[in-house]
Amino acid sequence: MIDFYRTQGFDIPDQPLKAGIFGASGTTGVEMARLLAGHPCFELVFATSREFAGQSLRVADPAAPDFELIAPEAVMLDGVDVIFTCLPHGHSAPCVEMCHEAGPVVVDLSGDLRLRDAALHDKTYGSQRNQDLIDRCVYGLTETMRAQLAGAKIVSNPGCYPTCVGLGIFPLAQAGKLNGTIVVNAVSGVSGAGRKANATTHFCSAYGDVRPYNVGRKHRHVAEMEQSLTDWLAADADNINLIFNPHLVPLERGMLATMVVQLPGISLDEVHALYAERYDAEPFIDLLQAGETARIRTVANTNLVSIGLAEAGEGHFVITSAIDNVLKGAAGQALQNANLVFGLPETLGLGATVAAPMKELAGAQ
Amino acid sequence: MIDFYRTQGFDIPDQPLKAGIFGASGTTGVEMARLLAGHPCFELVFATSREFAGQSLRVADPAAPDFELIAPEAVMLDGVDVIFTCLPHGHSAPCVEMCHEAGPVVVDLSGDLRLRDAALHDKTYGSQRNQDLIDRCVYGLTETMRAQLAGAKIVSNPGCYPTCVGLGIFPLAQAGKLNGTIVVNAVSGVSGAGRKANATTHFCSAYGDVRPYNVGRKHRHVAEMEQSLTDWLAADADNINLIFNPHLVPLERGMLATMVVQLPGISLDEVHALYAERYDAEPFIDLLQAGETARIRTVANTNLVSIGLAEAGEGHFVITSAIDNVLKGAAGQALQNANLVFGLPETLGLGATVAAPMKELAGAQ
Amino acid sequence: MIDFYRTQGFDIPDQPLKAGIFGASGTTGVEMARLLAGHPCFELVFATSREFAGQSLRVADPAAPDFELIAPEAVMLDGVDVIFTCLPHGHSAPCVEMCHEAGPVVVDLSGDLRLRDAALHDKTYGSQRNQDLIDRCVYGLTETMRAQLAGAKIVSNPGCYPTCVGLGIFPLAQAGKLNGTIVVNAVSGVSGAGRKANATTHFCSAYGDVRPYNVGRKHRHVAEMEQSLTDWLAADADNINLIFNPHLVPLERGMLATMVVQLPGISLDEVHALYAERYDAEPFIDLLQAGETARIRTVANTNLVSIGLAEAGEGHFVITSAIDNVLKGAAGQALQNANLVFGLPETLGLGATVAAPMKELAGAQ
Amino acid sequence: MIDFYRTQGFDIPDQPLKAGIFGASGTTGVEMARLLAGHPCFELVFATSREFAGQSLRVADPAAPDFELIAPEAVMLDGVDVIFTCLPHGHSAPCVEMCHEAGPVVVDLSGDLRLRDAALHDKTYGSQRNQDLIDRCVYGLTETMRAQLAGAKIVSNPGCYPTCVGLGIFPLAQAGKLNGTIVVNAVSGVSGAGRKANATTHFCSAYGDVRPYNVGRKHRHVAEMEQSLTDWLAADADNINLIFNPHLVPLERGMLATMVVQLPGISLDEVHALYAERYDAEPFIDLLQAGETARIRTVANTNLVSIGLAEAGEGHFVITSAIDNVLKGAAGQALQNANLVFGLPETLGLGATVAAPMKELAGAQ
Repeated sequence: MIDFYRTQGFDIPDQPLKAGIFGASGTTGVEMARLLAGHPCFELVFATSREFAGQSLRVADPAAPDFELIAPEAVMLDGVDVIFTCLPHGHSAPCVEMCHEAGPVVVDLSGDLRLRDAALHDKTYGSQRNQDLIDRCVYGLTETMRAQLAGAKIVSNPGCYPTCVGLGIFPLAQAGKLNGTIVVNAVSGVSGAGRKANATTHFCSAYGDVRPYNVGRKHRHVAEMEQSLTDWLAADADNINLIFNPHLVPLERGMLATMVVQLPGISLDEVHALYAERYDAEPFIDLLQAGETARIRTVANTNLVSIGLAEAGEGHFVITSAIDNVLKGAAGQALQNANLVFGLPETLGLGATVAAPMKELAGAQ
Repeated sequence: MIDFYRTQGFDIPDQPLKAGIFGASGTTGVEMARLLAGHPCFELVFATSREFAGQSLRVADPAAPDFELIAPEAVMLDGVDVIFTCLPHGHSAPCVEMCHEAGPVVVDLSGDLRLRDAALHDKTYGSQRNQDLIDRCVYGLTETMRAQLAGAKIVSNPGCYPTCVGLGIFPLAQAGKLNGTIVVNAVSGVSGAGRKANATTHFCSAYGDVRPYNVGRKHRHVAEMEQSLTDWLAADADNINLIFNPHLVPLERGMLATMVVQLPGISLDEVHALYAERYDAEPFIDLLQAGETARIRTVANTNLVSIGLAEAGEGHFVITSAIDNVLKGAAGQALQNANLVFGLPETLGLGATVAAPMKELAGAQ
Repeated sequence: MIDFYRTQGFDIPDQPLKAGIFGASGTTGVEMARLLAGHPCFELVFATSREFAGQSLRVADPAAPDFELIAPEAVMLDGVDVIFTCLPHGHSAPCVEMCHEAGPVVVDLSGDLRLRDAALHDKTYGSQRNQDLIDRCVYGLTETMRAQLAGAKIVSNPGCYPTCVGLGIFPLAQAGKLNGTIVVNAVSGVSGAGRKANATTHFCSAYGDVRPYNVGRKHRHVAEMEQSLTDWLAADADNINLIFNPHLVPLERGMLATMVVQLPGISLDEVHALYAERYDAEPFIDLLQAGETARIRTVANTNLVSIGLAEAGEGHFVITSAIDNVLKGAAGQALQNANLVFGLPETLGLGATVAAPMKELAGAQ
Repeated sequence: MIDFYRTQGFDIPDQPLKAGIFGASGTTGVEMARLLAGHPCFELVFATSREFAGQSLRVADPAAPDFELIAPEAVMLDGVDVIFTCLPHGHSAPCVEMCHEAGPVVVDLSGDLRLRDAALHDKTYGSQRNQDLIDRCVYGLTETMRAQLAGAKIVSNPGCYPTCVGLGIFPLAQAGKLNGTIVVNAVSGVSGAGRKANATTHFCSAYGDVRPYNVGRKHRHVAEMEQSLTDWLAADADNINLIFNPHLVPLERGMLATMVVQLPGISLDEVHALYAERYDAEPFIDLLQAGETARIRTVANTNLVSIGLAEAGEGHFVITSAIDNVLKGAAGQALQNANLVFGLPETLGLGATVAAPMKELAGAQ
């Protein structure tokens, strides 16, 4: 396969690229480790955890690779090609800075580098940041930033909701069609709440329940989504009013956004054509037939985005967008970005694509 | 307890009222049987099922009362006080007509009698109906129709979504505050899809999934909700645009509606005061503190409605309303209505109330 | 109803009995509060919680009654008739002692008073105990100890597994039929692991998993089951070898034990007759037809025990026993015992019985 | 990768092997299609379905590859290298016979070819069979039959329970240690009940329940397990009494067997050494540390078998064995067998192995 890709013009190194993970015992860290363990061109050389240092990653998650964790202080960055930082918000920025200065490419999965506006960041996260790093990093919503990702030194990986919602409305925003109130209702599986055990993540709290949280404009991903809207509209998004209502649902993996937008004077077929033009060549975007709706089952355990477009009368449309929050919403997209940074085939090590749902490789013959 | 209620002025008969169920082996029929088995003033005297005639209701549902089912042809209506029709749409109207003519009060849980406009009914259900019956029946959204229910002869019990959504916006509608686009996203447990086994209700289809269906304006409950809006606004609801996006979620019982409405020039406290005035005396409506959101866990296995009110900026509000779709959304509300029809205490046999979450009785001492 | 029971000879007090709960914010404490809130003859007068003192019980569990919790130090025992201690093992014994000396009847839901043998207790729990209390308390596996419960001052409420397993084999043990190896496999919903949030109770750990724990003879309920076997056999249980393999399953409430016993020379019908003779008059024991198996769905949210008996060849039988671990396995049985202690109807406030699955009352007419 | 394997001596064809599936729209058929779509050396050239002919496999399962199904009559076997028959019992044998005569290798996932004894087959399945085919096929419990699989023309793929239980006791059986009563309790996710929608597979039946079925010796997999025991013991298994109690649990994928065996005079460490010797080189068998227990979470969505060994006192041991019932219990093992038949690397296209949990390839560099 690798040789096949070489014949296709990919510049694939003879030796695997060395990769490390900071914060490997959390939900996204474990998934990152699992993906790297199965990737033909990356080799996981270290993974850190304060809590589980000296133990196998399987102690943190029984389904994880059997890889021994080390304390962050024990990391040696010499010769490492790429770092994935899976640390909590506020802890990530200093680690990114340290790694970046030492040489490796860094893909940051926290929120620390996502918001370019300092005041907005402080209001949203209130955590440590580094404006210089932020100014130099690429926001890795892959399908909207592919050109900038090649050769990037720092990638800020998007949040799960901004990925699901953003890719669901990007074609409309870029075409200048969005206007007025956008109502987004979204659901997320409990893995989105992280590995921390608390009253919310207790089985007996989430089971049998659907629970709204931070409705209206209170969720911190609202700022990230509005930043993207402003970028795509190539104008201030002041005439857009985003309402975002997230809910916790009783399943492990998966996220669905159901979005109501007003697009007067345009037919469903025209909207669909807009999306098709933008997305038909995308290996991970599964644009459904006009009138269909996305669902979580189709995308769970894949890096796919499923997008459905339907009418709601009076010039309104219902857009549904589904992802696996741990893959396309976190570790999967991080690896997709890393593939692009290093000039590897974008789909490598990521399983199902639209063309071949479970096949990443066409080059066996 | 019964004697206590008598001292409170309730005219409670010396002998239990005789009740029958048509269509007892479906989801609402089983629940109706379970509620009647636990009700101190009703006695279940027959329950029909074509599929399970001659067998116990426990064959249809292992958690149901052990009550022998009979074929509908075997029913004797003499001396029966009240009938609950739990038949599929289209099969119910003729049964209601037959029962009504024979004397008993009828509470119909199907959609056959809900829509007063014949053309709308035909477009929505396309099923048999009886305009004369419809004109004479009371639409049993209890908290909005209490006065009319006393002594009613036919009650048309509301749909589950119209109950959840309707009670969530009734105070606003009655106060004439609703206007413009109302975006309702709703989730329902799989019991809402009925007992019929098919590709949608298969465990491996619903588990791990969230699935939108009939989004926009395609669900047949839209017509029922708009009929109520027109009634409450005491005006045509033409200036209101209702968008309704239902989703199937992986749990058995429960329903949540998350509604975005535009209410310019009114504060959250004022909105809350409006609801409090309307609902504070209601035994089954649990109005949360301003800013809180409803969730399914609080209402599952009860006849309660939990309602939350929160701000969404720019004059928008997020209203959340949660019910148990099989109880307040079907059999529970049917029994609540029957209690009122016969002059019994409204909460009798329905378990938790707002004042005493699991206590129906204050009169023991 | 109450008057009806009086006509049946029950000595029901004119005023409700005053009840208190120590440790109300845990899983069994919340259930105890919910049951007492719905009981016609008990009135909850206090409920303690260190963590939530000064807050409503609904803060601990959104589906709990809205009852204000107090610190244990603030409890006044004057005039209180019955105390339910729902404290962790080791914390309960001193509280029981203190309450008992102050006068009220005490029903203890912890493990502190269950094992009569001091050495066995120390090995099993290693917690504080009080031999004098233990010697005076009644072990409240209701169906086996009804006579002793009337007028008892201290009741030690059984563990969930000992209830499920014990009632499943009691008729065989009492008939002296048990012998040799008994293999018990059992499953429990996650509520059995308590309200404490940890790696085991995290939704993403339990969801999609079945997980054995403490298999063989490591679970501390083994000692309690063997103590009962010794009592019932009226002989040392040395010739019996109990193997007990508990598993965590992804549901909230419910417990099922699947037990393989060797009973040479006796037919399934004879075994069934043995159980029928013992259990047919029991309001909460649902003995299935010979050859049927119990399942959790039938008993969840009830105080029922469902028991199935089937053949396994070569003189072996498979006994299945299912309960709701929070009700018959904890708070439900505690209330059943309290009813008996005070001479109330045994089923009062406990919902479904075998004769009328959801009806506790026959006395309305 | 492929080239790497060639350097390791594998005789990998230049063109992919052509594969077909009969009965592709069932649970195992869909999984087979998904695995083949991701396999570098097999190419799916046809997949049949009576119900969905002319439609995409995604109509049957939204997470399946987008592959157009054809009617079985439309199949052309010329040039096809391997057939996977995923038909219901009784329908499979004639199809296997037809395919076998046309040339391709056949891997049969039904029960039609599993039982060598005609009388036992008739009693167990009562379905059509073909003694000649049975005599010539290899029973594909891979780890016990690896030598025979190379170059086989017909493979009878084992049942899910016989795989889980069989691999869990094979080392003991082969060492002649098994004796007396073996009590096996097993749980299976609902995918084990197939795609057919019925009262058992309805979400509202399985959710929140654990349900024993066919306990004792009634499940038809008992005969298959006893056939294996007889083979491995190299003697009649008459002195062994197998009791098998399967249960349905509320999850989609996964199977766990908890087995109690009597092994007098041997220590846990000795038992573990026996297993280690047999299994340490196995890429898909994850033998846990002595005293640990297997769980479903570790193996779901993989072809792995997780095996735990623990003591139960008095010479008894508790063996736990977990698999994904759709992968190692069906389609995964079928592909593992096909890899061996064609001399391909055994782990190809099967994802996680013990050495590299999610990595099938070591050969990228």
